[in-house]
Amino acid sequence: MSGSRKKHLQVYFERGSQFHGHLSPGLAIGIFMVDLAQDILGPRELVDTVVETKLCLPDAAQIMTPCTYGNGWMTVKDWGKFALTLYDKEKLDGVRVYLDMEKAKNYPHLYQWYLRLDQVKTEEVLSEIMEAERAIFSWEKVRVKLPPKEKGLVSICPSCGEAHPASDGELCPRCGGKDDYYQVITL
Amino acid sequence: MSGSRKKHLQVYFERGSQFHGHLSPGLAIGIFMVDLAQDILGPRELVDTVVETKLCLPDAAQIMTPCTYGNGWMTVKDWGKFALTLYDKEKLDGVRVYLDMEKAKNYPHLYQWYLRLDQVKTEEVLSEIMEAERAIFSWEKVRVKLPPKEKGLVSICPSCGEAHPASDGELCPRCGGKDDYYQVITL
Repeated sequence: MSGSRKKHLQVYFERGSQFHGHLSPGLAIGIFMVDLAQDILGPRELVDTVVETKLCLPDAAQIMTPCTYGNGWMTVKDWGKFALTLYDKEKLDGVRVYLDMEKAKNYPHLYQWYLRLDQVKTEEVLSEIMEAERAIFSWEKVRVKLPPKEKGLVSICPSCGEAHPASDGELCPRCGGKDDYYQVITL
Repeated sequence: MSGSRKKHLQVYFERGSQFHGHLSPGLAIGIFMVDLAQDILGPRELVDTVVETKLCLPDAAQIMTPCTYGNGWMTVKDWGKFALTLYDKEKLDGVRVYLDMEKAKNYPHLYQWYLRLDQVKTEEVLSEIMEAERAIFSWEKVRVKLPPKEKGLVSICPSCGEAHPASDGELCPRCGGKDDYYQVITL
């Protein structure tokens, strides 16, 4: 197997670098990870994914599968774990691939980079990822259970006049003081 | 302006349909929305985005800007509001464009679809979106404040052996019972 996947995956390294802005170590690991998950799951009619970190890995899934953040076929769990599940949307069985820290120990720069133990050069981490390919992963077969996606009622917020899910209450999340990220600049 | 944006944006309608899987009404509105935000903000060296819904709109941002979910330049707020902010990553000033429900009233199928008041045909909604272009939006200038992205310590979960943010405590979110989405199938 060694050396055989890089060539097969070249198109994704290029597409991924363009989409993500650069080839980060996380994206590179992610491309090998999605590829392995796809191989184990085999052909299925409809495949969804759950990604267990917000960092880098979602972009590997978005360029290699029909699942995107905006179409809802990719669910992101903000667990900070470098793992993902590809699963059959109908049958709900799937495969979960994860970065195996015991195996990662064989790649000292990668190991130190991932655990933030020491400053390491990105090129050295990338070089080890390319050498490792699938050798840093383990996987398990899983059955997936996610909460149903409900499309509830929509309300108009009496404060800002914008539409929001009625389940939030009368006010939208921002006007209700639940969260915020901007101040309006009045000119 | 009427009719002039569709042609200019044709490449994004095609790329968006491919990335998202199909041209949904939300994606189509999103393409006009990102385009308007880019026009108002004008050229900046580095532009980040905050999207206020998980549905469809993030994909418009991902295909039209360098911001993706996995590279962290796109932040998604799960507010269920059809709005987004493009902002200068250095200066933190930006423009927030939102779906203006008062203006949307001029497009009855779109209005009914968005507020889920009645069953409407997707083609009729899409037809009104293409007619409306920017006529359903309002915008405001904003100053953005997001919490800093901290890269904290990483721990190994003593239960599953996988790495996770140390800030979660000893156990990872799944082993600690905070969240879950799968059962392992033992063969």
